[in-house]
Amino acid sequence: MYSREHYALRASLRKIIDKEINPFVDKWEEEGQFPAHKVFKTLGQAGFLGVNKPTEYGGMGLDFSYSIAVAEELGNIHCGGVPMAIGVQTDMATPALTRFGSDELKRQFLVPTIAGEVVACLGVSEPGAGSDVATIKTTAVRKGDHYVINGGKMWITSGCQADWMCLLANSSEGPPHQNKSLICLPMNLPGISIAKKIDKMGMRSSDTAQIFFEDVRVPSKYLIGEEGMGFTYQMLQFQEERLWAVANVLAPMENVIQRTIDYTRQRKIYNQPVLHNQTVHFRLAELATEVELVRSLLYQAVALYIRGNDVTKFASMAKLKAGRLARELSDNCLQFWGGMGFTNEVLVSRFYRDSRLLSIGAGADEVMLSIICKYMETLPQKK
Amino acid sequence: MYSREHYALRASLRKIIDKEINPFVDKWEEEGQFPAHKVFKTLGQAGFLGVNKPTEYGGMGLDFSYSIAVAEELGNIHCGGVPMAIGVQTDMATPALTRFGSDELKRQFLVPTIAGEVVACLGVSEPGAGSDVATIKTTAVRKGDHYVINGGKMWITSGCQADWMCLLANSSEGPPHQNKSLICLPMNLPGISIAKKIDKMGMRSSDTAQIFFEDVRVPSKYLIGEEGMGFTYQMLQFQEERLWAVANVLAPMENVIQRTIDYTRQRKIYNQPVLHNQTVHFRLAELATEVELVRSLLYQAVALYIRGNDVTKFASMAKLKAGRLARELSDNCLQFWGGMGFTNEVLVSRFYRDSRLLSIGAGADEVMLSIICKYMETLPQKK
Amino acid sequence: MYSREHYALRASLRKIIDKEINPFVDKWEEEGQFPAHKVFKTLGQAGFLGVNKPTEYGGMGLDFSYSIAVAEELGNIHCGGVPMAIGVQTDMATPALTRFGSDELKRQFLVPTIAGEVVACLGVSEPGAGSDVATIKTTAVRKGDHYVINGGKMWITSGCQADWMCLLANSSEGPPHQNKSLICLPMNLPGISIAKKIDKMGMRSSDTAQIFFEDVRVPSKYLIGEEGMGFTYQMLQFQEERLWAVANVLAPMENVIQRTIDYTRQRKIYNQPVLHNQTVHFRLAELATEVELVRSLLYQAVALYIRGNDVTKFASMAKLKAGRLARELSDNCLQFWGGMGFTNEVLVSRFYRDSRLLSIGAGADEVMLSIICKYMETLPQKK
Amino acid sequence: MYSREHYALRASLRKIIDKEINPFVDKWEEEGQFPAHKVFKTLGQAGFLGVNKPTEYGGMGLDFSYSIAVAEELGNIHCGGVPMAIGVQTDMATPALTRFGSDELKRQFLVPTIAGEVVACLGVSEPGAGSDVATIKTTAVRKGDHYVINGGKMWITSGCQADWMCLLANSSEGPPHQNKSLICLPMNLPGISIAKKIDKMGMRSSDTAQIFFEDVRVPSKYLIGEEGMGFTYQMLQFQEERLWAVANVLAPMENVIQRTIDYTRQRKIYNQPVLHNQTVHFRLAELATEVELVRSLLYQAVALYIRGNDVTKFASMAKLKAGRLARELSDNCLQFWGGMGFTNEVLVSRFYRDSRLLSIGAGADEVMLSIICKYMETLPQKK
Repeated sequence: MYSREHYALRASLRKIIDKEINPFVDKWEEEGQFPAHKVFKTLGQAGFLGVNKPTEYGGMGLDFSYSIAVAEELGNIHCGGVPMAIGVQTDMATPALTRFGSDELKRQFLVPTIAGEVVACLGVSEPGAGSDVATIKTTAVRKGDHYVINGGKMWITSGCQADWMCLLANSSEGPPHQNKSLICLPMNLPGISIAKKIDKMGMRSSDTAQIFFEDVRVPSKYLIGEEGMGFTYQMLQFQEERLWAVANVLAPMENVIQRTIDYTRQRKIYNQPVLHNQTVHFRLAELATEVELVRSLLYQAVALYIRGNDVTKFASMAKLKAGRLARELSDNCLQFWGGMGFTNEVLVSRFYRDSRLLSIGAGADEVMLSIICKYMETLPQKK
Repeated sequence: MYSREHYALRASLRKIIDKEINPFVDKWEEEGQFPAHKVFKTLGQAGFLGVNKPTEYGGMGLDFSYSIAVAEELGNIHCGGVPMAIGVQTDMATPALTRFGSDELKRQFLVPTIAGEVVACLGVSEPGAGSDVATIKTTAVRKGDHYVINGGKMWITSGCQADWMCLLANSSEGPPHQNKSLICLPMNLPGISIAKKIDKMGMRSSDTAQIFFEDVRVPSKYLIGEEGMGFTYQMLQFQEERLWAVANVLAPMENVIQRTIDYTRQRKIYNQPVLHNQTVHFRLAELATEVELVRSLLYQAVALYIRGNDVTKFASMAKLKAGRLARELSDNCLQFWGGMGFTNEVLVSRFYRDSRLLSIGAGADEVMLSIICKYMETLPQKK
Repeated sequence: MYSREHYALRASLRKIIDKEINPFVDKWEEEGQFPAHKVFKTLGQAGFLGVNKPTEYGGMGLDFSYSIAVAEELGNIHCGGVPMAIGVQTDMATPALTRFGSDELKRQFLVPTIAGEVVACLGVSEPGAGSDVATIKTTAVRKGDHYVINGGKMWITSGCQADWMCLLANSSEGPPHQNKSLICLPMNLPGISIAKKIDKMGMRSSDTAQIFFEDVRVPSKYLIGEEGMGFTYQMLQFQEERLWAVANVLAPMENVIQRTIDYTRQRKIYNQPVLHNQTVHFRLAELATEVELVRSLLYQAVALYIRGNDVTKFASMAKLKAGRLARELSDNCLQFWGGMGFTNEVLVSRFYRDSRLLSIGAGADEVMLSIICKYMETLPQKK
Repeated sequence: MYSREHYALRASLRKIIDKEINPFVDKWEEEGQFPAHKVFKTLGQAGFLGVNKPTEYGGMGLDFSYSIAVAEELGNIHCGGVPMAIGVQTDMATPALTRFGSDELKRQFLVPTIAGEVVACLGVSEPGAGSDVATIKTTAVRKGDHYVINGGKMWITSGCQADWMCLLANSSEGPPHQNKSLICLPMNLPGISIAKKIDKMGMRSSDTAQIFFEDVRVPSKYLIGEEGMGFTYQMLQFQEERLWAVANVLAPMENVIQRTIDYTRQRKIYNQPVLHNQTVHFRLAELATEVELVRSLLYQAVALYIRGNDVTKFASMAKLKAGRLARELSDNCLQFWGGMGFTNEVLVSRFYRDSRLLSIGAGADEVMLSIICKYMETLPQKK
């Protein structure tokens, strides 16, 4: 799928990763937060926060396959948290704004986001509505030329550091798929409070916030696109989010396999390298096979997406499989490291913790299955 | 991957399948053999036995993707045995002859094979050397302008009906990867005996033979390409065989899923359609996901192969995965048919029996794993 | 769990199996039916059809653990069909009669069944109500001192040869768990017709019938126990059926493992025994582990059952696991036989076909799961 | 398996857990160490550190089933680290001393260990010889009436706090199974240094040390039993360690299932409790089934062990299965908690991290498989 241009882009990004990011990852993991503003500025100046965004707003104007190439390369960062926050900035919080936002709105929010001058977050999940977007409770009530926001959001990646949020809220009483709107919400408005930074099992360098809104007034012109279209926009936005997430987990999976090969080649038990055990090299071959399967489905989906197709089904399939494979792969490889695998000193154990999120976030596996069933027309009709 | 031309080809083949093949499959399955000469004549006249063979020998001169399209379409035949025999004719016994055979040899063997006037078989496996091609024992000893063949072959698809065999034999004493040759062997020569027709659990419409050779004299000009290159040629031939096998199992898998959806939609337990059980429609969604994964890896491998790449690793990965998935899928779907699944009256139980072969034939799963490990450089070095 | 007496009983049964049964199994499998009357007479005369039945009706008067020991030993018969028919006679069609039937009824039906003079079958399943006993449609309408039976039964083991059936039918209009009765139904009554012998994928030596009832008049004194208690009786009867089924599959699983060890020890690939592959001996060790797990749960459940406990949950767990393991084990072992595994010449392929039934019959896996959930109190309440 | 006395013992232990341990677990987890001396004193005074140790050394003199009952009850502690350290004290570092140690040695080391006045650790694993006990490198060279110890140990549970270690070292040059000895090593001797406290992914309340020995002089009378018998003693000791480990994981598995039931019953998605999803309650039923399987095999093995049988095979099978099930169960249940499962606020995520060790420690899964194969006589002979 990739041309020479894609590879050049990746090589250039890799240099930044190796120099500006990876040397600090262990420290950030320990501190429980990475300096998003600093890192994003570096990435933004090099153009990596907007490869498929229009040039008029500071992007590179390339197609989505370049964004996927970037997502893949970001997988070489030595943790899951930093890439995830970058992905929120580039492919989760901004696709709807880019596609449906007014020029004014894009100048105000998209331009600095692409430049890496501000940090964005996505406000969809709520306590009790993680995977079920339709049942969120946060309201945005129109009062004159403002919306008044009340409610709260949960599991907000970069929520402690973000300058603005792409907020999904109920802007009217109607049916759940037609009463929602996306709004650009500056995070310094009165009434917004960070309830807590959630203490997570993995993805520790990325902060995750619970946030409350109490009578937050935001100008109505910060609405993205049309009122009531929020659910639809978010579903579209999810396609890119999921493809991004799949692309981003490929390199970690391959790296873990390769490091496991390297380690088991030198680690000896019963006077032979652990790798010489048939159950070890066969299992690694099976895992490598599964990685190739995911990769090929991803590339096929991206190719179709670029040509304008609805790839919701394929994106959901790829996301489902990637999440499950990441768990299986990290668990299986960790085993071959013996006691070392159980320490915090090796990447495989970090990946074991970090990657567990993929089956939960961006729509849990069960949500993916429901979407696939919907496309297969096998879901029972609600009465 | 497919263009309009591919789809037209498939549609045209589908008509033959629906009219000339499927109505007779149940009968052939019961009889334990299908009339290969009759069926191949029909297919040959319509051009389907040589879509990617050169036009000068009666083929259509298309690229390998058309052969894959045909393989996929043949999956709509209501059993595994008939397509397998067709595949032997088109993509297993003839690729080496087509690529390396002399013009004279191709006129004598390839032309009638493409025309469907003769039935071909592939003679590689032997008792005790099913998956390990290098250790075959059959010899072809050069005596003047003949080879004298002694030994035997096992698991020979179409062996009871075949007019000629693409035979792999040891033509010298050297190291096992350099002492083998491929030879076109007419099956009516003195000294060839069909030891038995093997009674198989599945693939019942396809005959499988054990064959003995006792001082069989075959002209040395029936050698394919160079002497001693047989192992290499066969390894190349295996790539197409494996890609073909993967392509051929896609439609059965999708058909079984679809029939299971249809059946469970109308079958009621506890006053609701079986399909409404979440474990049923979710499981079918997971299986459909796996089918798409295999399909995308196959298409990627074929695209690379057409462009001249070595796709041994990808072909082996796809074959490994396809074999395992076919077992899982047929087992899982059969479960949803309840008692009906255990009868011989439904396709799913035939597929359950037939598809079990895919993990064994054309190189067992364990052989695929060894190949993948070889490419990953994780195999222990033999001392 | 077993005492010296259990082992003596098994040894004595083994002699009959080795002499009177196993030499003929291949023939019966091919013919699609075994001579139940002949085999049962032999077993009945030796006492094996009533080890836990009261001595006053010809049984041995031992506890249920002896019945389980017999079920285990019957697993050494070289097919699944013959033991299954024996199990129907001893532990599926007769427990309710033994426990709740009148003395007269037991003298008429139980005594000759224990003696092996007649063949019994169990009439519960119907087309469209295989796993859902509550929704059967067959009716038994009281008219004077007779019941008039209408409807039909499906999947009736030994149905083509049986002399009487333990029939479950709706004897009134009430709620589905209180309107059913068990009735001893002589199979030679007018109005009973064997619609067909079902052509099955496995269990071929055992005949399976679809049966129709049209105004069949049966004396009302053939009712087992109380009218309306049929569902309850059958649920009790199922406990023994399921424990029996689990016990019966242990020996086949162990035999398949052992035969696979023996075969792979002598079969060589790449110049070493197949067994020397770590993936082979490790996989066999994993399977042996699972067999021991099932065995220990079975023994624990039987011990509790003998002491008078409700073991529905444990019996369902053991049945669920045994069915799944039998599929996995037969599939995995078959793989190690290579091409031979795909022939009808080896036991592993017969077991592969036969054992597939265990997850379907006697309550499918999904029924077991529902029962377990009921005991875990996790089933959603029907509204 | 359990009598009223077992249950009384458990109830009494439960009170201590609920009052003296569980309220502090979160704090200890955060601090990365629990106060072993304090906790052990409490447990020791109540008798729980020696239930199956002889009364003359302060134990309760009960059989091993009571030790298993204690191990089970300890599973109700809200983390894996604290029970593990207790298990080291009671069933891993002391069985050999109890069985083979001299009276003097037992008075010096066993009595205070049972009383909870000192903390014991077990010194078997080394860097590069975690699972392969035979290849340890640490030496104990006899010089007069002392051994001089050199080398190092790795993965030593309680190593940072321990007062003495049950050390396995090479006391001569001979073959690896006959040159080892077990020695009671006071940890305050000159030449012993705690190289580091290992930073682990889970089991965080338990400290794990890497320890170096440099010319450590220990009196030769601290030898346990006979010189050269260390490997044999340790293998015996491993049986109890493994049974203990299996028993200890049962309660956490059941607790995680029950908490998941409770949580998913109240957590709503798509307007219904998550638990009402069939894939949720069915999956939990499958997991509960597997837990019962492990439990029944454990009880069977313990019953055999008490009667004097070698249960190495069953103990290895149970340990293998328990380790794998704990991983599967914690992963699967975590999924049903959605985002909450990924936080450090719920037990399921702690169990997900802690339980990963069970497949690695006390002999990795692969070691268990080798042992099982040895008993099945399927291991290839080393040449």
